[in-house]
Amino acid sequence: MKTTAVVGLGLIGGSIALGLKDARTVRAYDVDGATRAAARNRGLDVAERLEDVLPADEVVVATPLPGIIATLDRVVPLAGRAVVMEVGSLKAAVAAFAERAPAEARVVGLHPMAGSTASGFTAADPAIFRGRPFLVVPTARSDARAMAAAGDLARALGGEVTVCSPGAHDRAVAMLSGVPLAIAIALARAGADVAHLAGPGFEGATRLAGTPPELARALLGGDVKDALARFRAALDEVERELG
Amino acid sequence: MKTTAVVGLGLIGGSIALGLKDARTVRAYDVDGATRAAARNRGLDVAERLEDVLPADEVVVATPLPGIIATLDRVVPLAGRAVVMEVGSLKAAVAAFAERAPAEARVVGLHPMAGSTASGFTAADPAIFRGRPFLVVPTARSDARAMAAAGDLARALGGEVTVCSPGAHDRAVAMLSGVPLAIAIALARAGADVAHLAGPGFEGATRLAGTPPELARALLGGDVKDALARFRAALDEVERELG
Repeated sequence: MKTTAVVGLGLIGGSIALGLKDARTVRAYDVDGATRAAARNRGLDVAERLEDVLPADEVVVATPLPGIIATLDRVVPLAGRAVVMEVGSLKAAVAAFAERAPAEARVVGLHPMAGSTASGFTAADPAIFRGRPFLVVPTARSDARAMAAAGDLARALGGEVTVCSPGAHDRAVAMLSGVPLAIAIALARAGADVAHLAGPGFEGATRLAGTPPELARALLGGDVKDALARFRAALDEVERELG
Repeated sequence: MKTTAVVGLGLIGGSIALGLKDARTVRAYDVDGATRAAARNRGLDVAERLEDVLPADEVVVATPLPGIIATLDRVVPLAGRAVVMEVGSLKAAVAAFAERAPAEARVVGLHPMAGSTASGFTAADPAIFRGRPFLVVPTARSDARAMAAAGDLARALGGEVTVCSPGAHDRAVAMLSGVPLAIAIALARAGADVAHLAGPGFEGATRLAGTPPELARALLGGDVKDALARFRAALDEVERELG
């Protein structure tokens, strides 16, 4: 049976570990002791130290986005031939990391287009992945085996695989995640004085304003300004059509 | 027992009729024969002609927004002392109608901030009103009895009453319904090329683009340009903060 190590047991990492544990040997780790205890309570095999998730056939790095490169810096030297995947929402920094990684390292990006404004292991649920796009993002250290491992993992969770370059990935995410987040924050501010009268339409349109701050800051970087310019042009067009 | 007539059995009118029928005598009407049959199947007392919902203590006009004034034109002359409420999403035209209505007419606006992109009697469900704001909007033909009737109806459905003028109502709705709709349409256009990769954030942010066209046209009129200007200013501010 394939052995999958999962590092970081938040909403995404926790959901991956729970979703795989009946079909594979899963070894998990989180930096937070309470999270490790909660994960054990839900039947996961949890290591006390990052190093102890290895050896494995593959490692899934699922820490919060700002910590992914630092975690890859620790994991890749220990990983040997294991395929190292990370499931962060932006890939430019991962692509740059892979360029400078040892020649024998195997690093591939994977991005499940799933989640919610909830976060943490308590919100973990493998059902969030079913039928969802999983973007597989090759790097300078991806080979056929690494790409296949990422695709297999996506399919094992019920996802649907699309392969795209780091640049195309980050541009798509700017429109799909960054712009909706910026819009939700702006709408919540513009409508703050009448929000107590809101129906479900306004509530739904401002929900993303509750995105965890750390993720929000990351999603509002990158290519979001270009994507916002395209959104503004479309809004101008909608407004012109109003007459 | 108070008798309430409901004219128009779409999502909102149907939900009102179903929500009241165990506590009051409810007589309902819809212009569409299939809707009348469906309403009878769910236990409502349905008249074959608009005129036959009267006499009643109060009449709730719940036709689609573009037909509300024409329906008030028919209902008010028949209504006698009955309080006539309408539950449309914009109130300027209702206020103007009330100004020219006979002195003895009693007309009051009521707007439950509830609903969804679903429409029609098949989607009717009284649960959509629970805990929701109901905006009670006085007109030149509202007296204490009319205001009390609107408040009673809102509370009977589990709603929470806020009283506001037609102008304040329409300005609030422009921000709470018009702007989110315009944003959703613009975002769906700007992101059309990557929408197949979307996660739940983008899907939620574009959901209102599926608003029924007749309602969408009405919501994008009125004060929406002023509200869009305030949204744009807030979005500029969010973008400046990105650095």
